[in-house]
Amino acid sequence: MKSIMCVPNISEGINLEVVEAVVDQVRETVGVKLLDYSSDADHNRSVITYIGIPEAVFQATQKLVRKAVELIDMSMQKGSHPRQGAVDVVPFIPIDLDENESVQLAHSFGEWVGRELEVPVYFYEDAAKSPERKSLVKVRKGQYEALEEKLKDPRWAPDAGPAVFVPKTGSIQVASRFPLVALNINLATDKVDLAQSIANSVRHLNGGFRYVRAMGLAIEGTGQVQVSMNLIHYIKTPIPMVMETVRREAARYGVNVVKSELVGPVPMGAMEQVMSYYLQAHDFSSDQIIEKSLIGWS
Amino acid sequence: MKSIMCVPNISEGINLEVVEAVVDQVRETVGVKLLDYSSDADHNRSVITYIGIPEAVFQATQKLVRKAVELIDMSMQKGSHPRQGAVDVVPFIPIDLDENESVQLAHSFGEWVGRELEVPVYFYEDAAKSPERKSLVKVRKGQYEALEEKLKDPRWAPDAGPAVFVPKTGSIQVASRFPLVALNINLATDKVDLAQSIANSVRHLNGGFRYVRAMGLAIEGTGQVQVSMNLIHYIKTPIPMVMETVRREAARYGVNVVKSELVGPVPMGAMEQVMSYYLQAHDFSSDQIIEKSLIGWS
Repeated sequence: MKSIMCVPNISEGINLEVVEAVVDQVRETVGVKLLDYSSDADHNRSVITYIGIPEAVFQATQKLVRKAVELIDMSMQKGSHPRQGAVDVVPFIPIDLDENESVQLAHSFGEWVGRELEVPVYFYEDAAKSPERKSLVKVRKGQYEALEEKLKDPRWAPDAGPAVFVPKTGSIQVASRFPLVALNINLATDKVDLAQSIANSVRHLNGGFRYVRAMGLAIEGTGQVQVSMNLIHYIKTPIPMVMETVRREAARYGVNVVKSELVGPVPMGAMEQVMSYYLQAHDFSSDQIIEKSLIGWS
Repeated sequence: MKSIMCVPNISEGINLEVVEAVVDQVRETVGVKLLDYSSDADHNRSVITYIGIPEAVFQATQKLVRKAVELIDMSMQKGSHPRQGAVDVVPFIPIDLDENESVQLAHSFGEWVGRELEVPVYFYEDAAKSPERKSLVKVRKGQYEALEEKLKDPRWAPDAGPAVFVPKTGSIQVASRFPLVALNINLATDKVDLAQSIANSVRHLNGGFRYVRAMGLAIEGTGQVQVSMNLIHYIKTPIPMVMETVRREAARYGVNVVKSELVGPVPMGAMEQVMSYYLQAHDFSSDQIIEKSLIGWS
């Protein structure tokens, strides 16, 4: 069964009635399952996570965005988290879906927003239409406060919708991105510089693996340090390759791995790779998992 | 969501109309998913595999057994596979269910069969009521042809139903057993005695792991040998422990593992262990798997 996840961030984290009204749009959509939502008052922002068949996720997101745009007024909004719109980001994440289909869905969705809600839309990450717009940090530079001027600049013409500043709503940023795997590896040493050095070895920025972001840090009160990583494309840079590289780098200094943590959601495909790598079970498929036969089954 | 698997074997593998009529009982039950069924004419036997919520699996199995008992006549049945009844075995396999609940379900089912269909029932494996009846081989000794005499022996009083020989049906054997994991490990050598020696090291029979059955064999045309194993309780004797033991035993003779195979269905819990062991991700739970949130969801 095809499935896609969506994790919109809305610029409201204080008025929980508004948040509930927005989340209700997901709850009320058939074919979608609400996985999580949380609000942060300092950030004045809420994150909503849901999954389902692509058509239903598309529909739930339409309703969610429509409701958020109706209830949130950016001209009054303050918060510590960077944001450029009432619905600040709408990332679609293919779970059991081709990456290209997810990009197309993000584009269709952005075009619907531009047309129906008449607000500017920027595409970023894998949905970006030019390399300069791939990074959300760059797309959102100057934030809501700079948007009116930005929209006058032809280089910042929106990817969908009118190049018109709508004070109440701002712009909506729509993306497709691969599911991210958060992997932390604890090392049996208190030398934080070793964790930092290993983080530098494995991360893309310093010459490491293409799809790894990493940093080294101390874990207070444990006498351990941690290499904290995001694997942003687990298929192209798989967990076991990163795990064993960190292990070997630590071993060069006589340091052992104490444990690792996979934080938050993990795609089935990432588990499949771990099985295949360590057991050398090259033909293993997650379709063999008994419970998988119950997915999408009532 | 609680789930249980059931894999009845019926003593009909030639008349496929009969097989279809029996399988239809599963297809027509709400809350059960037919995973597989196959017939063997030489064995004159069919294996039907389905999964679902316990109540529904119980109901599907009632209907299946009733239909098979109606259509199959053991007094005329011939086949190369050992059998003692029209429905020869009914093993229940807990997937997302406590083992004790599965045993209770097997007992309730067997008692229903005895009462409603008035045929003798034997419980085996984890449903056995005495150690001597744990092994199906022992319970089925002498087969259908010896059953009439056997039922006159008080030591072979059935666990449920009357101690009466019903020529048309024979006896029905009901079990609960843990899901089995089939793991084959190929070694880069053509020395079959090495595979046999390693199989002996890891299997219960010769002093190895309690829940491992193993044998060593040559794989024709590959120049490789294989340690072929059944892990009959993957929680108590986990895959990684067996894998790494075989690897080390082979390494003692300078032989590498070429690859391994997990044959057939694998429970999610077995994957969880592999993640936890090799990544040292001691807190990893299969609940983190994104797709798992879609189980039992329509």
